[in-house]
Amino acid sequence: MKNVVVGQSGGPTAVINSSVAGVYSGAKELGAEHVYGMIHGIEGFLQDKLVDLDEYLDNPMGIELLKRTPSAFLGSCRYKMPKPEGHEDVYEKVFEVMEKHDIDVLFYAGGNDSMDTVKMLSDYAKAHGKKQQFMGVPKTIDNDLPVTDHCPGYGSAAKYIATTLKEVIRDNESFGAAKPTVEVCEIMGRDAGWLTAAAALAKGDDCTGVDAIYLPETAFDVDAFMAKVDYLSTHKHSVVIAVSEGVKLADGRYVMELGSENAMVDAFGHKQLSGTASTLCKMIAQKTGLKTRAIEFSTMQRAGSHVASLTDINEAFAAGKLAAEAASEGATGEMVIFKRLNKPGEPYQCGFSRYDVHEIANGVKNVPLEWINETHDGLTQDYINYAKPLIQGELIPFWCDGTPRHLVMKELADF
Amino acid sequence: MKNVVVGQSGGPTAVINSSVAGVYSGAKELGAEHVYGMIHGIEGFLQDKLVDLDEYLDNPMGIELLKRTPSAFLGSCRYKMPKPEGHEDVYEKVFEVMEKHDIDVLFYAGGNDSMDTVKMLSDYAKAHGKKQQFMGVPKTIDNDLPVTDHCPGYGSAAKYIATTLKEVIRDNESFGAAKPTVEVCEIMGRDAGWLTAAAALAKGDDCTGVDAIYLPETAFDVDAFMAKVDYLSTHKHSVVIAVSEGVKLADGRYVMELGSENAMVDAFGHKQLSGTASTLCKMIAQKTGLKTRAIEFSTMQRAGSHVASLTDINEAFAAGKLAAEAASEGATGEMVIFKRLNKPGEPYQCGFSRYDVHEIANGVKNVPLEWINETHDGLTQDYINYAKPLIQGELIPFWCDGTPRHLVMKELADF
Repeated sequence: MKNVVVGQSGGPTAVINSSVAGVYSGAKELGAEHVYGMIHGIEGFLQDKLVDLDEYLDNPMGIELLKRTPSAFLGSCRYKMPKPEGHEDVYEKVFEVMEKHDIDVLFYAGGNDSMDTVKMLSDYAKAHGKKQQFMGVPKTIDNDLPVTDHCPGYGSAAKYIATTLKEVIRDNESFGAAKPTVEVCEIMGRDAGWLTAAAALAKGDDCTGVDAIYLPETAFDVDAFMAKVDYLSTHKHSVVIAVSEGVKLADGRYVMELGSENAMVDAFGHKQLSGTASTLCKMIAQKTGLKTRAIEFSTMQRAGSHVASLTDINEAFAAGKLAAEAASEGATGEMVIFKRLNKPGEPYQCGFSRYDVHEIANGVKNVPLEWINETHDGLTQDYINYAKPLIQGELIPFWCDGTPRHLVMKELADF
Repeated sequence: MKNVVVGQSGGPTAVINSSVAGVYSGAKELGAEHVYGMIHGIEGFLQDKLVDLDEYLDNPMGIELLKRTPSAFLGSCRYKMPKPEGHEDVYEKVFEVMEKHDIDVLFYAGGNDSMDTVKMLSDYAKAHGKKQQFMGVPKTIDNDLPVTDHCPGYGSAAKYIATTLKEVIRDNESFGAAKPTVEVCEIMGRDAGWLTAAAALAKGDDCTGVDAIYLPETAFDVDAFMAKVDYLSTHKHSVVIAVSEGVKLADGRYVMELGSENAMVDAFGHKQLSGTASTLCKMIAQKTGLKTRAIEFSTMQRAGSHVASLTDINEAFAAGKLAAEAASEGATGEMVIFKRLNKPGEPYQCGFSRYDVHEIANGVKNVPLEWINETHDGLTQDYINYAKPLIQGELIPFWCDGTPRHLVMKELADF
């Protein structure tokens, strides 16, 4: 490969920059002359907004600092490639920019929508006899990409959630009031409950854990929920419940729609959810008179690089590096995937491979129903066994004058 | 001193347990036979709920683990001592429990309301010729106790806020949309803006910082706020604003009261605030059509021991230890205070003293108006100079199987 470009797309994670570091390191080792970064993803690339990553990463300290930097170092976007028919100009523009800079390979780190971009660009290249390659690097805190065992970004978000919930639970438990405060913690996850499931990781011999967990994989039963709250609040002096932002009633309505506000719709046609926890807290307060507190982990859960999982950081780096190696072997229209090599009970071992992006783009992998307990308010040990290895290890931030140091791309501010 | 007891009261902090460790270490060094902990503060003490802290702390590992444990290890309470007149039975009960266990000194770690408890108990002892001593150990993330330069708990909460805001800002900045998302971060602080002021600490050469900061010390001007949002949203592609939960209009109404919900009142007669950020976000969305996100740092900001400030931990420990030393010198009705020994521009140096709790109890120290900028939406360099030393240093958690290890008192679960 001569020159390559890497971009980041969709919601940021704590480790998406490790994947950029991996692509950079891998491509450089394989002889790439220039590794460019696209500013604000494919949206910026279409405007020829590029940066030569040597400027930031051509030294070990740059790489280490980038690994500790949350969110998209290169800038992200939510631009959705149009269907090629009638929009050939958009596609031709991509190839024009690639040719202008002599770029052989385009790496795109993202989730479901981003893999759709990789798919459409690689399909277009094949259909039009173009030699450029397009490789996907998995990235999503949602952990919902098909085929791969798990996704970079998930382990760190799960570690943030487990760490923060332990602290939130201790905070609520410190009060010994006769009537407990019921805290409902809202966790990201529109359709898949992986992130909310991570609430189960707070439990241990130094933490009682959350008292109930509700995922969008099963229908939310308001009566069963209220009965659970009633039971918990008469048997415990602290109640902390984890709930996915995307929980839905059996009739398909989002729980948050039970509140007064209507959901808004984003550029991809997804409902903009918020307020599931506050909707449930209002319901609890009205029906029981108990004091409640709605807590949203909001963007902190995806940007919390100061508690990132070292396992996740290393795997995200490997995903980028392996994408570069795959491209050097001629791969296109593929995404790097993770395979769990160990058998159950054996020490965790993660293997890597690559897979046709057609089988991945726009697909969704949910939490298996057999990992959800019978009463649909908790996870089984199988989930714990799956997730625990992903949150292991830490990469201590470069603490500088009281806060973690981040790597900043000055071109982003100018954009 | 023969035996002593230590209790924790009010909202937890990340370092209130360091003060317990300090009292324990100090009292033991001074020859105390038993150092008891009161379970759930004075409320549990009145029911003779005590634990001998040797069980947990009679080894260096116990002390180190306690320093890394957030929230009140002993359990907290919000019990307000009644006025002595007509409630002599409550006061006599305190002395009865002290005499039963041969306790000379009662240490109470807390904020304004807790210092009122220390004041009333020491006054009662003097008035009734009782020899028992009562010492206050400062604790409040709000940093609003008078006389002392700052309060244990503040530095760690400030470090959590600065660290988290850097991550939140990076997250929001990663998108390069023509129209920014306006994020409003709500930070605790009913009357004093110290915690919200800590948002100013996010700024540095690797972070643009928050775009505006609103404290309850100055009247909140809705028109000026909306004009600021208008300006920012047309000049920046990311807008992040920090606002205190307690900001009020010139007419005294809380900003959150502009929303539809009425505030609830807690046991101390304080309004239970929430929803200031969401009220402002609704206002922005309605008037500008911009996408908004309300973020509340909620109890995470006071329980975030995984990002606690080492300076704060050490000072909280020292406060507990010095309270024990003061008691051994016969002090009662006093609180340990911090004095800044260095002159401006010199390296930070914290000295310790003690002060009459009558001058402290129920008092409030606000952010000096001269540290707030002219447009009432930011802090001056004087505040930065004051606060920066308080967030320095880290005490790495004991990471254990993916999450920070905490010390748990089994008696608390049984309460």
